[in-house]
Amino acid sequence: MRLPSGIITPTVTPLRDGDLDGEGIAELLEFLRRTGVVAAFPAGSLGLFHLLSLSEHKRLISEFASRLPSGMALLPGVHRGNLEDTVDVARHARDVGAAAVVAVPPFYYELGQEEIADYYVELASAADIPVIIYNIPQMARNRIDPETAASVLSRTPMLAGVKDSSRDLAALQGYVSALPGIPVYEGQDDLLLAARALGAHGGVCGTSNFVDLPQRVWSAGADDAPALQGRLSRLMRLLSRYEFPSAYYYLFQAIVMGRRNPTGYMPRPMRPL
Amino acid sequence: MRLPSGIITPTVTPLRDGDLDGEGIAELLEFLRRTGVVAAFPAGSLGLFHLLSLSEHKRLISEFASRLPSGMALLPGVHRGNLEDTVDVARHARDVGAAAVVAVPPFYYELGQEEIADYYVELASAADIPVIIYNIPQMARNRIDPETAASVLSRTPMLAGVKDSSRDLAALQGYVSALPGIPVYEGQDDLLLAARALGAHGGVCGTSNFVDLPQRVWSAGADDAPALQGRLSRLMRLLSRYEFPSAYYYLFQAIVMGRRNPTGYMPRPMRPL
Amino acid sequence: MRLPSGIITPTVTPLRDGDLDGEGIAELLEFLRRTGVVAAFPAGSLGLFHLLSLSEHKRLISEFASRLPSGMALLPGVHRGNLEDTVDVARHARDVGAAAVVAVPPFYYELGQEEIADYYVELASAADIPVIIYNIPQMARNRIDPETAASVLSRTPMLAGVKDSSRDLAALQGYVSALPGIPVYEGQDDLLLAARALGAHGGVCGTSNFVDLPQRVWSAGADDAPALQGRLSRLMRLLSRYEFPSAYYYLFQAIVMGRRNPTGYMPRPMRPL
Amino acid sequence: MRLPSGIITPTVTPLRDGDLDGEGIAELLEFLRRTGVVAAFPAGSLGLFHLLSLSEHKRLISEFASRLPSGMALLPGVHRGNLEDTVDVARHARDVGAAAVVAVPPFYYELGQEEIADYYVELASAADIPVIIYNIPQMARNRIDPETAASVLSRTPMLAGVKDSSRDLAALQGYVSALPGIPVYEGQDDLLLAARALGAHGGVCGTSNFVDLPQRVWSAGADDAPALQGRLSRLMRLLSRYEFPSAYYYLFQAIVMGRRNPTGYMPRPMRPL
Repeated sequence: MRLPSGIITPTVTPLRDGDLDGEGIAELLEFLRRTGVVAAFPAGSLGLFHLLSLSEHKRLISEFASRLPSGMALLPGVHRGNLEDTVDVARHARDVGAAAVVAVPPFYYELGQEEIADYYVELASAADIPVIIYNIPQMARNRIDPETAASVLSRTPMLAGVKDSSRDLAALQGYVSALPGIPVYEGQDDLLLAARALGAHGGVCGTSNFVDLPQRVWSAGADDAPALQGRLSRLMRLLSRYEFPSAYYYLFQAIVMGRRNPTGYMPRPMRPL
Repeated sequence: MRLPSGIITPTVTPLRDGDLDGEGIAELLEFLRRTGVVAAFPAGSLGLFHLLSLSEHKRLISEFASRLPSGMALLPGVHRGNLEDTVDVARHARDVGAAAVVAVPPFYYELGQEEIADYYVELASAADIPVIIYNIPQMARNRIDPETAASVLSRTPMLAGVKDSSRDLAALQGYVSALPGIPVYEGQDDLLLAARALGAHGGVCGTSNFVDLPQRVWSAGADDAPALQGRLSRLMRLLSRYEFPSAYYYLFQAIVMGRRNPTGYMPRPMRPL
Repeated sequence: MRLPSGIITPTVTPLRDGDLDGEGIAELLEFLRRTGVVAAFPAGSLGLFHLLSLSEHKRLISEFASRLPSGMALLPGVHRGNLEDTVDVARHARDVGAAAVVAVPPFYYELGQEEIADYYVELASAADIPVIIYNIPQMARNRIDPETAASVLSRTPMLAGVKDSSRDLAALQGYVSALPGIPVYEGQDDLLLAARALGAHGGVCGTSNFVDLPQRVWSAGADDAPALQGRLSRLMRLLSRYEFPSAYYYLFQAIVMGRRNPTGYMPRPMRPL
Repeated sequence: MRLPSGIITPTVTPLRDGDLDGEGIAELLEFLRRTGVVAAFPAGSLGLFHLLSLSEHKRLISEFASRLPSGMALLPGVHRGNLEDTVDVARHARDVGAAAVVAVPPFYYELGQEEIADYYVELASAADIPVIIYNIPQMARNRIDPETAASVLSRTPMLAGVKDSSRDLAALQGYVSALPGIPVYEGQDDLLLAARALGAHGGVCGTSNFVDLPQRVWSAGADDAPALQGRLSRLMRLLSRYEFPSAYYYLFQAIVMGRRNPTGYMPRPMRPL
């Protein structure tokens, strides 16, 4: 299966009073379906995966799987830092119907590129599900060179794609060149149009949790695209004034859920906006 | 109970062919006892806690607890990033006899100082065991201000100490001033003597996994201390030429375990030296 | 006058045995003319302006001015860190026929955005020559927000353009949106094609000192452009293995000057490749 | 001549309506004399050397030299980034009676350690005056390894001292070990006491522009020193809330000059507090 082209949503983790909110997940998925999102990516950086316990992490994936609209792919994040728990979550994702899983490399420690390649090869092999490499060195500390991704591809047929959130379009272009036939996604909403010009297969766009602007940028013609991207980029600058990612959570609650005074929508120890 | 003064060892995680090595743990603890270490701190940064699965993490603490020499305190790291799993590990540590637990704040995400204070208060309260704050912003991203530690202290009697590995002695001095009666430990071997001059209660020294030099610096008189610290600092510069912390693991295997060609002593995906 | 569209060369400073090399400057300019470069930008970051004395800096601009091919614009860097010397160099540039001058903001110190705006307004006013803002925070420490550039534009008609070397295409797009009618140039060769898609007016490309690849990327059709950009990006990765910018100097000496064993081509204290 | 032990003041540059203020310089020097400062260091980072033109820089040194109290050493900063202008300023400093000159390495560009050593050797030789190495990588980008300083010392008898503002006391201790007999000064007020414990010869303390607290820390006995250092460190934390170094300038104007509403005390483009 080739991953779909277009906009993927790195979903917020809908909470109510600190607990996973099944209704919120259902409304979020319905919103994504209606606005033309091609895949849901729960438990990414925006989904605050690293504030979830191991069991909550698996439960979150189950909740998305059981409510997934037909025609939408499920691409959950499975990263736990260590290989064993990550494989555990990835097997669970496979069992509930995920099309592929997304993983940042081990973080906290600095790793060599060969160690990172080993990690992805072992993960795909042990969990037996296609893997999407997730490059976000500003959070995960370890960058993933295009050559490293190519090394993974040469060792396993299970490399399904790359999500690049590094902000460095030279890296994105490096992936496009080094991985023929493998979809590469831009992970920064404000670089979506530039990434399209460089051959990206789509975007993983946080703002698609509450607006359809990324989808409109992605499908716009050459005449309209710059102005639409300009609007999306201004939205991103506004969001960047808040501690990441609280404003995404607030806007999801306010716009999609229609809650006037949402409470308990941030996981501990994060405080609401 | 007041935490002991002197040198604490942030222990390597002894592995053999990738599995926890009970014999290695026993020999390590015997080496620490013989060289005058006052407490063992498994599952710290040097112990590669974030490459351990949740169940391995707990098993590691049990293994240290069951072999702990009398008179030595057990101060295990319990950090898992999220509060729920961290509390789970901390309760386990309490049940097997730990004197206190050590925790870095949630990492990966940037947090506010109030959120960090909440985290420590909730952890101590939920796990019902004294907590040692661990400040290491270069790894955990989030620094902990002395004022934040003071805020924790004002809200719970369970703050047992601070380990400062930030390299900023002004922060260490800030803790000493802001937390009267609470032990503050220096986490960098090459700053041990300077920290002693500023009122530190001891040092958490990685090199004490295979030499007794930190203990000698700590107990040296004013005449001998600078030269001994100079030797320790040169050792640290040598170690810094290798990807952290592989050289510590190799030297432990070679010096303490007496293994000529140790294999499998680094957890996946880390490669040996 | 509106600045030209296309490729501008941030020129190496041709030296022979440590002294400005008039013959080298002449051959460089002839190479640029032949390969379709639209403007020469001496005394930029690549030109090692900050290793030149105040008098050498002015002399370098004179040497380029006196040898400038017809039809090519002269856009010298005039930045000296302080306003007074920068105005002095800018007046000199105006007197010898520069079309506009380029300036990074004061560096070494961290400045506020209002202070940066003041600086550019005062520079343009005191030197009476159009000014090009040069955004390169990784070298000059101080970034220049698109809003700051817009503030400069609202206060003086002398803002001639922006060179963005920040690697952040969202910043470049911000300039394009905030400064209608003002040319914005991409300063990183490996982002040239992406910047073209976002409305850049041209590129300031270091590799154009010795190859014509940037010009070919800039004028390529949609079919050929990605492959050509891929070649240019690979060249950039090779160059990045050397301490900046010694490889540019070596390749200029070897390819354009045809020198087998060039000596003294780096200013003190830089050592040759 | 061996450089004096104790507190050296990295002086603010007294301005009135944007011009060098001879009266301010006189009052500053009288304040330093009265409070027991052993040397004046104009044109350092705090003196905003990089916002001064080449001619102002030389004039500033002359103004300090002509008003220097007897018994106080003059140790001016001479750094201009490039070697030629730096030598020019250093010769001027020598001619007006400086005991030694201080220099950061070339900044803006990244240099190798050998290039940095060459720079200091050439500067001392060309200007024929003792040189003090100034390590401040957070501003000047290039750090100076203790081994590099030792290499300079092995090549010239003109190395007079080191000022370390890196905040890394391991570096300071490295200088003390690697440079027997050469004075090493701590450049951060909040690390003064720790540096004294490691064998520093004195401190270069910005707050000595308006208080005598650093001198009291330096000469305090073991009993009083920690509390005094605590007060000095709290002062530093307060100052750090302002853009560097505007609060130093304001407090000098208010406390030493007794001006209620000082104007024009920051050089362009810096705005007052």
